[in-house]
Amino acid sequence: MSIDILQERIRTMKNPTVVGLDPTPDVVPAYLLEEARQRLGQGPEAVASAYETFCLAILDSLRDQVAGVKVQSACFAVLGGPGISAMQRVLAHARELGYYTILDSMRGDMPETAEVYASGVFGSVEAAGPGFAPYACDAVTLNGYLGGDSIRPFLPYCRSGKSVFVLVKTSNRSSVEVQDLLSGGRLVHTAMADLVSRWGADLYGKYGYSQVAAVVGATYPETIRSLRAKYDRMFFLVPGYGAQGGSAKNVQYAFDRFGHGAAICASRSILGAWKSGDSDGRDFAQRAAEAAEKMKKSLGKYCVIM
Amino acid sequence: MSIDILQERIRTMKNPTVVGLDPTPDVVPAYLLEEARQRLGQGPEAVASAYETFCLAILDSLRDQVAGVKVQSACFAVLGGPGISAMQRVLAHARELGYYTILDSMRGDMPETAEVYASGVFGSVEAAGPGFAPYACDAVTLNGYLGGDSIRPFLPYCRSGKSVFVLVKTSNRSSVEVQDLLSGGRLVHTAMADLVSRWGADLYGKYGYSQVAAVVGATYPETIRSLRAKYDRMFFLVPGYGAQGGSAKNVQYAFDRFGHGAAICASRSILGAWKSGDSDGRDFAQRAAEAAEKMKKSLGKYCVIM
Repeated sequence: MSIDILQERIRTMKNPTVVGLDPTPDVVPAYLLEEARQRLGQGPEAVASAYETFCLAILDSLRDQVAGVKVQSACFAVLGGPGISAMQRVLAHARELGYYTILDSMRGDMPETAEVYASGVFGSVEAAGPGFAPYACDAVTLNGYLGGDSIRPFLPYCRSGKSVFVLVKTSNRSSVEVQDLLSGGRLVHTAMADLVSRWGADLYGKYGYSQVAAVVGATYPETIRSLRAKYDRMFFLVPGYGAQGGSAKNVQYAFDRFGHGAAICASRSILGAWKSGDSDGRDFAQRAAEAAEKMKKSLGKYCVIM
Repeated sequence: MSIDILQERIRTMKNPTVVGLDPTPDVVPAYLLEEARQRLGQGPEAVASAYETFCLAILDSLRDQVAGVKVQSACFAVLGGPGISAMQRVLAHARELGYYTILDSMRGDMPETAEVYASGVFGSVEAAGPGFAPYACDAVTLNGYLGGDSIRPFLPYCRSGKSVFVLVKTSNRSSVEVQDLLSGGRLVHTAMADLVSRWGADLYGKYGYSQVAAVVGATYPETIRSLRAKYDRMFFLVPGYGAQGGSAKNVQYAFDRFGHGAAICASRSILGAWKSGDSDGRDFAQRAAEAAEKMKKSLGKYCVIM
């Protein structure tokens, strides 16, 4: 089961970190863009190639260090077809290296569309050739605002080794506007967590966590704490560590009483680590590895995964 | 302003229909796939090409008949890079023909990602060449579960001619699970409509509708009626007509007292019209036009747009 693989990978690496691959012109060093432009011209192909080179080097650098990667589809999608093709190769390389691989698209579709999308990301698009699977990944992020029939098309794949991470409480400031609305004795995000729990009720892996997991932002420690108190068998993906303001102290509550059950996600603080100081970015992969090591140490103070 | 263009296009066509372009192997006739495979082999390129041929022919056939098109990104995304490239050409052709063009990706992203995505779909990705704009469209669909800071990156573009359609109440059965939760005196989808109204408060076009508009499913006529009663300056995009069960009688409440302010979206009932009867699909474009004409007549009983 996919969530077991994540759990095992966290144990092997002794590190619950998931690195967010969100390439933008801000974190990808200028020299990579220049080199790609010299080869491929001024168009989107060059930017896509630079993003790919950057992500592959990050993957190679952190391969023995972190549990997984989360690939932000929007960053690649804004480059059109060449961007998506580059993302496909980044995902494939991540899986080859043994990373637990999350495709972060935060979609929440109508049931018919969810069916199409689920087969594309988790199954295969047979019309495009036997076994054609464009997005090699272990899990996707989903938005549950549409309710159960938008999630259910993914569940057969969860039964055979994939996972979904449903947005429960996101790390951004405005998440309070909808997610913290009071509804009866619950908040909307608690109601969402109840649904997540129900959708994954018969999909537990061997370590006791459901394949239907939750996204809970690092910036709301009290929310993490109360969700963990209520759901001891729900796996939490916790984004927002680092640049967004979440600290190791904040995210400690995501782990269960055995120190398990959560993966902590950081992106810019690792990808853009080379930007602190006077680097021109040529050491980005090394600096990313150092930042990941520092994050691991910080997390180690609060979670026991050794 | 974009929402004015939609309103004007509806008046010119005397038809509030928006056709949903959701190509799948189910609605795209087999002969198109076969022809494409003979040219391009068995891979995703052939399927992407068949989808493109199909969509371009639908666009050509309905050009003087319907107000707009809504392009479902998931259907193309599951074909990887070649699929996205085909979608870019479909969007560009739709705009060339004068359609009001909606990119339907139903994303709801973190603010930083929303910024990246908004510039990609509405602005330009300067890193990929001056003015590089991969997705020529007038509007996108968005999921507001993350709140205001996930929507705000799109608003500067709304000020200069683009629109967003935020999911308020979706047409699927399970939409009740989250969207109809009671929160104080409101339902969650009413709270979402209040937010939509606030986000678009200073973005009114010349016909009185805000550029920040709402998606309200055709299958919940009472919800449409109560939302219309409360929000007389909110434009509604109403999907779920036809195959999903929404009828002209259902959607009549979406229009304001002048018979304006709404666009009605149908997909499978138009794209797959050739499937009723014993057609092999070679008349799909003609049959789509007939289905669209029939839909226009049905809607005409309930809305005054002449």
